[in-house]
Amino acid sequence: MTLQGSLLIGQQAVTGSEAEIYAINPATGEALAPNYRGGNHVEVDKACQLAEAAFDHYRETSLETRARFLETIAEEIEAVGEALTERGVAETGLPQARLEGERGRTCGQLRLFASVVRAGEWLDLRHDPAMPERQPLPRTDLRQRHIALGPVAVFGASNFPLAFSVAGGDTASALAAGCPVVVKGHSAHPGTSELVGRAIQRAVAKCDLPDGVFSLLFGSGNEIGQALVANPHIKAVGFTGSRRGGTALMATAHARPDPIPVYAEMSSINPVFLLPEALKARGDKIAEGFVGSLNMGAGQFCTNPGLVIGIKSAELDAFVTAAGEAVKGSAAQTMLTPGIHDAYQNGVSTLASKSNVKEIARGQTGDSPHGCQPGLFVASASDFLTDEDLQSEVFGATALVIECRDSDEMQRIAEHLEGQLTATLQMDDGDLESARQLLPTLERKAGRILANGWPTGVEVCHAMVHGGPYPATSDSRTTSVGSAAIYRFLRPVCYQNLPAGLLPEALQDNNPFNVSRLVDGKREG
Amino acid sequence: MTLQGSLLIGQQAVTGSEAEIYAINPATGEALAPNYRGGNHVEVDKACQLAEAAFDHYRETSLETRARFLETIAEEIEAVGEALTERGVAETGLPQARLEGERGRTCGQLRLFASVVRAGEWLDLRHDPAMPERQPLPRTDLRQRHIALGPVAVFGASNFPLAFSVAGGDTASALAAGCPVVVKGHSAHPGTSELVGRAIQRAVAKCDLPDGVFSLLFGSGNEIGQALVANPHIKAVGFTGSRRGGTALMATAHARPDPIPVYAEMSSINPVFLLPEALKARGDKIAEGFVGSLNMGAGQFCTNPGLVIGIKSAELDAFVTAAGEAVKGSAAQTMLTPGIHDAYQNGVSTLASKSNVKEIARGQTGDSPHGCQPGLFVASASDFLTDEDLQSEVFGATALVIECRDSDEMQRIAEHLEGQLTATLQMDDGDLESARQLLPTLERKAGRILANGWPTGVEVCHAMVHGGPYPATSDSRTTSVGSAAIYRFLRPVCYQNLPAGLLPEALQDNNPFNVSRLVDGKREG
Repeated sequence: MTLQGSLLIGQQAVTGSEAEIYAINPATGEALAPNYRGGNHVEVDKACQLAEAAFDHYRETSLETRARFLETIAEEIEAVGEALTERGVAETGLPQARLEGERGRTCGQLRLFASVVRAGEWLDLRHDPAMPERQPLPRTDLRQRHIALGPVAVFGASNFPLAFSVAGGDTASALAAGCPVVVKGHSAHPGTSELVGRAIQRAVAKCDLPDGVFSLLFGSGNEIGQALVANPHIKAVGFTGSRRGGTALMATAHARPDPIPVYAEMSSINPVFLLPEALKARGDKIAEGFVGSLNMGAGQFCTNPGLVIGIKSAELDAFVTAAGEAVKGSAAQTMLTPGIHDAYQNGVSTLASKSNVKEIARGQTGDSPHGCQPGLFVASASDFLTDEDLQSEVFGATALVIECRDSDEMQRIAEHLEGQLTATLQMDDGDLESARQLLPTLERKAGRILANGWPTGVEVCHAMVHGGPYPATSDSRTTSVGSAAIYRFLRPVCYQNLPAGLLPEALQDNNPFNVSRLVDGKREG
Repeated sequence: MTLQGSLLIGQQAVTGSEAEIYAINPATGEALAPNYRGGNHVEVDKACQLAEAAFDHYRETSLETRARFLETIAEEIEAVGEALTERGVAETGLPQARLEGERGRTCGQLRLFASVVRAGEWLDLRHDPAMPERQPLPRTDLRQRHIALGPVAVFGASNFPLAFSVAGGDTASALAAGCPVVVKGHSAHPGTSELVGRAIQRAVAKCDLPDGVFSLLFGSGNEIGQALVANPHIKAVGFTGSRRGGTALMATAHARPDPIPVYAEMSSINPVFLLPEALKARGDKIAEGFVGSLNMGAGQFCTNPGLVIGIKSAELDAFVTAAGEAVKGSAAQTMLTPGIHDAYQNGVSTLASKSNVKEIARGQTGDSPHGCQPGLFVASASDFLTDEDLQSEVFGATALVIECRDSDEMQRIAEHLEGQLTATLQMDDGDLESARQLLPTLERKAGRILANGWPTGVEVCHAMVHGGPYPATSDSRTTSVGSAAIYRFLRPVCYQNLPAGLLPEALQDNNPFNVSRLVDGKREG
């Protein structure tokens, strides 16, 4: 299909009336047609009113209907074919194979949530039967299920044009929960967004769902996003992006007459702790794995390992040398947007200009106008503890190695960290005691703790936590990847003494959905 | 024991250095010794530092140790004997039987959470085993558990000196989750608070737990509470009280460098919908039940039925007459504090002075200096829809009846309501269709929906939701009563590829806690 440059409001394609946005191919600097005129409060209101109108119907669709809808979205995305990955490549500078892999991940994620909807665990069904003979007072029948919060605003992220964008994890989990979704598409990949948005539109129509279950808006600047979060019909927000962007949305959500939850996944430098025995046994191999993870996607991952912590030693020196050599040989991959490239250059320059930071290596510069020249730097733990500049995220393939005097200082570094998405331990059997001492601190700092792996590559599964204490996210009680992401968009409702004819189907005596329940606090099924 | 007028910081009893507070017997107006000198930031810091120091140990205590601790608190509270209920009566004006019942509820709640801790559902254990052969990429072993958020600040409520105070639901659920607790005791019942606080102190010592697991602070004004919420060691807040108080704490929590969740249960007028067939069949009986619920505890319940909605008819007139007669005959029960009594008088006067509100009945005035003279008023639906004064909570035994022209107008009233803790339907079989039409709206407005009962009397069980959309609470995704309250104080952590020697015990292969788990998304055990 030909891209139209449209906003998608329910089943309609609408041309905006505000300033245009358009994609730039970061590999060439060329502007990509079509232009997308931005929406304003009129389109925000219309999309949100449609979402509101769709909500009560959509949230009560059968588990099977909703699961089929998610699967149909996946099928429609796949049916777009190469046009989708080609446009994705052009808009992001990412390689074709990456776009293909990301499409697989996105569609797999939609299918995972289809299975989650069918399993029905998210309903958290509870039943405390009546006890009419209880003394001193009888107990009436009490049942609980979870229902959808309401229409959800989702902000597409720049760095995953499919998996964290229009049909990404936030959209999939919100739709799974029974929430209509209004997406603010990321301005860097509007064409990819339109293609995916139209696939969702088709799935809505094929599944006979109300129009308002899905809309897609574009707009330059922050106005449209702020208007979306402020709209009274919106009841929750999913966001992946910068700390500045996330905290601005949090402020708007908090200032509403009825504050709403914001699930913002923001910034993380993903510390990697090199424990001594592991470093001794396989420092070179760790250096290789580290630089591979650092360079993945030009370092433009939320889980990019931006901080490496080791104890000063000949082995750490050898690790730094080996990692530096690998960085020197690393190609400059094209970054997602000119803006992200500028921010990266500024971040690296700031780091390089600091007297307490030593440059170990820079990678290749390459030919791309927006190539990411990798970087590796070293600083002392004492400087890291006193200079908060050193804890700032540099979004891209640059990392800082922190040299500690001893394990106590390593512990202090761990305690000093802000909230993180991940913390990684490189450890051998002989490091077990050191790892045990770090673990309680790491648990309080990060949502996911890894041993002998790398934080990039977030598995979409049931046990995943892609979350963590502030500022990694705005709500450490949640995850934005994996099946538990659905819980962000649900709330419990208790039904007391309702006649069977009024009780929601899920809560009927015969458990028609055949879902695991807590009966008098004991699990059944 | 003799009351000391102390702050309790860990195992210490400390005398504050700020302005004094003291209880007033609201039945007599007499001041009750001792005076409690308030704490300031020094005591806040000390209590929070102790809580922080206790946290990592306390959160990893065995399920059995933590359950026994909760049970020991219950035993120690019971061991205080009549001194506790007598002091409670003197400080609140509530009858002895109510205090005894509330003590039973409080201790039952502690024992319920002991059973919840032992059952371990709250750990939400998940395991996605490694798939080393998977193509194109292998999957590593991923496990998830929930851990405690950190030290929790709890604010005692005025209206339940035991069940929503020092050892109330917030404290019990936070301790169950593994969070140390710092309580800001309510200034209206410091003696009751001290007795309970010392019972908890003794339980901490008997169970060999670190001192900082529990502290109790007092202070006049808002400073100490604000300092507590702002303290960097505090990671969540439980509060039951006014909308003004709750939103002030929310603002402080949101303005922190690391915003933290606030679980504030604030205001609710608990609408009761009188459906036509029920009104025809048993209007008198409904009137009787309604006034009984209205008068319970002088109407000082969060779930007090402050709003009754019916369709204008002879049957509704008869209901209003019957309810008015019952209100006229209602005694004036002593209110909790002079301040609450003043606010009630002002609220009733404002309502009575409005030209669009008709006074139906006032109850007895009685002899108490702070007696609650019940009240019943009527207004039209059209006035309710346009005058937001009519939706304000009057804390006490006063209710407003709304007369609707027809069921459409009743529906509009439902849609117009703010978030509520409860919504009640009085209905007969012939009302089923009307009830079905109201239900989706009520689900979006309230945390608990009742049929043919009254909202006062919140059962402490597994299916209970004592929560609801803003402004009923600050977080509609949660409940502050019932076993699910524990989830407020937990967050998920994922462990990727950890060696068995480093994995938390709960996540070991052999499931040593014998807890239900999600394995590859399927429930086991």
